[in-house]
Amino acid sequence: MTSLTVASLQLALNSADQSDNIAAVGALVEEAAADGAQVVLPPELFSGPYFCKTEDEQLFELARPTLQHPSVIAMRELAKALKVAIPVSFFERDGHHYYNTIAMVDADGEVMGTYRKSHIPDGPGYEEKYYFRPGNDGFKVWEVFGTKIGVGICWDQWYPETARVMALKGAEVLFYPTAIGSEPYDDDLDTSRMWRRAMIGHAVSNCMPVVAANRIGVEDGQAFYGHSFIADEWGDMVGEFGTEETGVLLATLDLKRAAKHRAGMGFFRDRRPELYARIARDE
Amino acid sequence: MTSLTVASLQLALNSADQSDNIAAVGALVEEAAADGAQVVLPPELFSGPYFCKTEDEQLFELARPTLQHPSVIAMRELAKALKVAIPVSFFERDGHHYYNTIAMVDADGEVMGTYRKSHIPDGPGYEEKYYFRPGNDGFKVWEVFGTKIGVGICWDQWYPETARVMALKGAEVLFYPTAIGSEPYDDDLDTSRMWRRAMIGHAVSNCMPVVAANRIGVEDGQAFYGHSFIADEWGDMVGEFGTEETGVLLATLDLKRAAKHRAGMGFFRDRRPELYARIARDE
Repeated sequence: MTSLTVASLQLALNSADQSDNIAAVGALVEEAAADGAQVVLPPELFSGPYFCKTEDEQLFELARPTLQHPSVIAMRELAKALKVAIPVSFFERDGHHYYNTIAMVDADGEVMGTYRKSHIPDGPGYEEKYYFRPGNDGFKVWEVFGTKIGVGICWDQWYPETARVMALKGAEVLFYPTAIGSEPYDDDLDTSRMWRRAMIGHAVSNCMPVVAANRIGVEDGQAFYGHSFIADEWGDMVGEFGTEETGVLLATLDLKRAAKHRAGMGFFRDRRPELYARIARDE
Repeated sequence: MTSLTVASLQLALNSADQSDNIAAVGALVEEAAADGAQVVLPPELFSGPYFCKTEDEQLFELARPTLQHPSVIAMRELAKALKVAIPVSFFERDGHHYYNTIAMVDADGEVMGTYRKSHIPDGPGYEEKYYFRPGNDGFKVWEVFGTKIGVGICWDQWYPETARVMALKGAEVLFYPTAIGSEPYDDDLDTSRMWRRAMIGHAVSNCMPVVAANRIGVEDGQAFYGHSFIADEWGDMVGEFGTEETGVLLATLDLKRAAKHRAGMGFFRDRRPELYARIARDE
């Protein structure tokens, strides 16, 4: 495939009724598909308000096995009906384990597999280490529409390692569903510009497009900052929202152009794996 | 040390007489020192025009053993006299081997050691693989003025791996001497914005300041684009030049603030080395 049409969805997800949020995402998936999208990216954990702001054992009840989660069930139906692929972010329960997971749903509505968030944040307003076991099956790529895509989940987006491993596994486009916003303990801490800079860095260092989707809206005083974007292999923005827009960002990515740029720059040619051992060593 | 005053030097280096170029750098080192700089970064291979644009066996004569290279000799004297540390970029000869090297000169004028460029570019106008054996002793950090600094050389700057290894070895500030400009085979290829984005990505992902120095001026049709900069741990620019300024960029970095940010974000806390093996594997 020489091109891929991608969509990033941005919206508020603050209804107490999961079906409202899932329906709102579904409406944007339909809009994206009508506009020609092939891969549609909703934000992280879109079935409800971002629940990790406090540590509450009641909330583990939200988790479901992959095929039983309402987000996965709804998106599988839509994917099949609309012929789009959807990385579906949801709260997974697997026996006694709980994960922050994406189910990669292909354009036939089948679950190709799951990826469990590897990097788990923890801090005021983002108490994810309480809820999620860190994913232990590593970074993955999926082939959809003849293109290999990699999907990281939110905090993964800060890690050059995540992007690089996905690229080395053949990813041609990187996707990041996200839920990030204000930092309740520090009014001066606006992470939005560094959030974008980190991912733009991945686009440039790996010479490939990056797609990010974030929620908006204020949930119990926590303001999610949107700024969903699609950047090309140069890190140039080809589509971006601010902090308030609801809707679909759409772009047709020229993957042949990106592949030529990637080969021409030679970054992968010139890598020195023998000098990178420290990165993979736990010390 | 809780702060470090750093300087990035930007200038044209196109005199056929090495002593002219070294004297021009020396004058800016003096200016930087007078302004309070502790670490002063000249551009890459500053003793002359960027000679790698063609493949010419005559040019290997420019290489010298570390302590005999005129750039190193001159900067050692200045460093000692002015009490500044200088990463000195030069063309090194070591027996039958030739490297693109920095000598880390401390504020007593002593050579603390060398680092040999690990990532070697090759393409029209940048025929470095003809001249330089890839460095094989890995990325290094140096302690100057009580602060650990890392130094990568030009093409190294595209690699998140270089920045990360230096950070994992304790670097608190990353330095990149550079010689980069127009691409003679492709007028549309302006790498300057991606060049900065890659390094801003390193600043953000590692929560530490980055200092880059590039040359300016046109050398046989190859236009070096300057854009030297100093960015803080957020990736915010605290000093930057355009494509034409000659001079000293100076900034006092608040390393205590950066360390607090680095700890608070938790990026190093949440790393998953066991998932990064692919990065260090040659396949």
